[in-house]
Amino acid sequence: RYHRIALLPGDGIGQDVIAEGVQTLNLLASLAGDFRLETQSFDWSCEYYLQHGRMMPPEALNTLREFDAIYFGAVGFPTVPDHVSLHGMLLPIRQEFDLYVNLRPIRLLPGLEGPLRGRTTADVNFVCVRENTEGEYARSGGRIQVGTPQEVATQTAIFTRQGTERIIRYAFELARREGRHKVTSATKSNALQYSMVFWDEVYSAVAAEYPDITADKWHVDALAARFVTHPQTLDVVVSSNLFGDILTDLGGALQGSLGLPPSGNIHPVAETRRGPSLFEPVHGSAPDIAGKGIANPIGGIWSGQIMLEYLGEREAATQLMRAIEAVTAAREVLTPDLGGRATTVEVGKAIRTALRKL
Amino acid sequence: RYHRIALLPGDGIGQDVIAEGVQTLNLLASLAGDFRLETQSFDWSCEYYLQHGRMMPPEALNTLREFDAIYFGAVGFPTVPDHVSLHGMLLPIRQEFDLYVNLRPIRLLPGLEGPLRGRTTADVNFVCVRENTEGEYARSGGRIQVGTPQEVATQTAIFTRQGTERIIRYAFELARREGRHKVTSATKSNALQYSMVFWDEVYSAVAAEYPDITADKWHVDALAARFVTHPQTLDVVVSSNLFGDILTDLGGALQGSLGLPPSGNIHPVAETRRGPSLFEPVHGSAPDIAGKGIANPIGGIWSGQIMLEYLGEREAATQLMRAIEAVTAAREVLTPDLGGRATTVEVGKAIRTALRKL
Ligand SMILES: CC(C)[C@H](C(=O)O)[C@@H](O)C(=O)O
Ligand SMILES: CC(C)[C@H](C(=O)O)[C@@H](O)C(=O)O
Repeated sequence: RYHRIALLPGDGIGQDVIAEGVQTLNLLASLAGDFRLETQSFDWSCEYYLQHGRMMPPEALNTLREFDAIYFGAVGFPTVPDHVSLHGMLLPIRQEFDLYVNLRPIRLLPGLEGPLRGRTTADVNFVCVRENTEGEYARSGGRIQVGTPQEVATQTAIFTRQGTERIIRYAFELARREGRHKVTSATKSNALQYSMVFWDEVYSAVAAEYPDITADKWHVDALAARFVTHPQTLDVVVSSNLFGDILTDLGGALQGSLGLPPSGNIHPVAETRRGPSLFEPVHGSAPDIAGKGIANPIGGIWSGQIMLEYLGEREAATQLMRAIEAVTAAREVLTPDLGGRATTVEVGKAIRTALRKL
Repeated sequence: RYHRIALLPGDGIGQDVIAEGVQTLNLLASLAGDFRLETQSFDWSCEYYLQHGRMMPPEALNTLREFDAIYFGAVGFPTVPDHVSLHGMLLPIRQEFDLYVNLRPIRLLPGLEGPLRGRTTADVNFVCVRENTEGEYARSGGRIQVGTPQEVATQTAIFTRQGTERIIRYAFELARREGRHKVTSATKSNALQYSMVFWDEVYSAVAAEYPDITADKWHVDALAARFVTHPQTLDVVVSSNLFGDILTDLGGALQGSLGLPPSGNIHPVAETRRGPSLFEPVHGSAPDIAGKGIANPIGGIWSGQIMLEYLGEREAATQLMRAIEAVTAAREVLTPDLGGRATTVEVGKAIRTALRKL
């Protein structure tokens, strides 16, 4: 089996972690012997922007469309405004390719301490499923009387039934597939009486089709609190785009370092696919440590693991997760964000050594 | 000095905690000798709703307008939908009386352990200032093709310059008044390009008027993570209505029990006041423990403390805070939510005993 992967390492530590990820995935392929990755790298980034006045060339999306998956590092540069780097690259890819699932496992890896007192990997182990194409990110709104005391700004969230139903359904399907027992919905229907009352109605309707899965819901404020007070009660969390953005960063924080959380931006239905899915660590380009060789590569490598699952390479994906966990459990080779002294490359190598030993 | 206080204990444990709060405030008044509280109690609640078909009588808001402050317990009953109890009572009071500041101190009280590993009262001690009348809670939006596959729901956030400026200004004034050095704004201007870009502009403009206060900002997702990973870096946090709703519940969770966080819903400017400000614990009516006499009264009593400050009784407020802290520091009289065995009344008494000893 061949998988064509577009590499978009981007800026700063994005480059370091994708380099480790690619080596690790290639090793997996050669150990497995029955699949191969064909990679092509693109230098689209803020650095590219500073030279060419845009984050990606005009034909970029068409170029990417030919690939099976995109392996993305991070974009962002102190001198390039955030909205340029994001709206010029990541957000258009999510929306053009209709990558409606933002998948973010939240797991405290074995051997690591998170910020929560007395919590271990047994307590913090759930999956966040975030809507990724509509809702609060609809880019709808306006401003009048700009700059005057009379100014008014509006921002409109747009929820469609199709968009809401498919993300909620994905959460229940994922629960079944992974043998998880509960789906929790983030709502705020006590205050947002159009969007979230609608969300709740769709949620109830879909939940009724999955009698084998417990369905509960919490207002997003209470749910954020529960991430901290009752993480062990969470299994699969489904949410709108903005709520998921907040909850998954919070969840990421529970993992002990921002260098750890991975993500997939996925269109899971083959028939309606408009382009490749995209896999990226949750962390940014981290200009403060860029070039120092000490970025934690686990978030990037773990994102590669989610990519393998998406590509159907289940067994390789399972192996890779085991290798990552073996390295954190051993606590011998960890980057400074986890209290260790290892470099990015050393952690990458340790994971590959662990893979060879499995 | 006389202060006329409307008591709205509401449902469930709201009644228990307000009872302790009133006794404690009355003791403070008699110890101080130079102010008195005149209280009048109203039974508006879900129970009232079940009898009369509405949460409050039609003239309720006019009745309340005569008071200097409202001391509120909690509303909510298993058989009454949330949106009825909230939109029938709390939200109309906030909006009719233009209580645009939702003030929520986040402090890990001495002696208590929160959920964060190794954090003490020295690390978790900041104030959240939440906009409370507009923004995402504007009740604007709609639904078409209801119940069909073509359904679309929208929800529009509305931000005015006046509304945005006054809440941000309040945060900076509070920082000055309380000798705090930094204000942190919650934004999401990288995705919400009308409302939050506008918010950021107003924030920069107001911040420039306070060169003595450090002003920083974080996207709300990253800020939620920082509540958990870097609470010690927070001093005053200012946010929109919805972001503040989420962040303050999260902050409340850091305090170790939902029974602790207090709040004020305040219109701070005497000239433009349209009614009394309202003070309430963040917790709800807690039907599961209602009537058992074990609710933690600290959130309610602490809300009374914020009310005293608002009424200008600074010294009494300071005393009350000391008494609450003396009780938690001693760890002898705590309700079950904090691992103790004391009743609501016993904790109330312990705080009053501490007051007498100050
Ligand atoms: C950078 C930003 C636009 C983005 C988002 O809000 O989706 C990021 O926070 C994320 O979660 O991927
Ligand atoms: C009950 C609900 C409408 C309310 C809010 O969202 O404002 C509550 O969560 C709060 O924070 O006071």
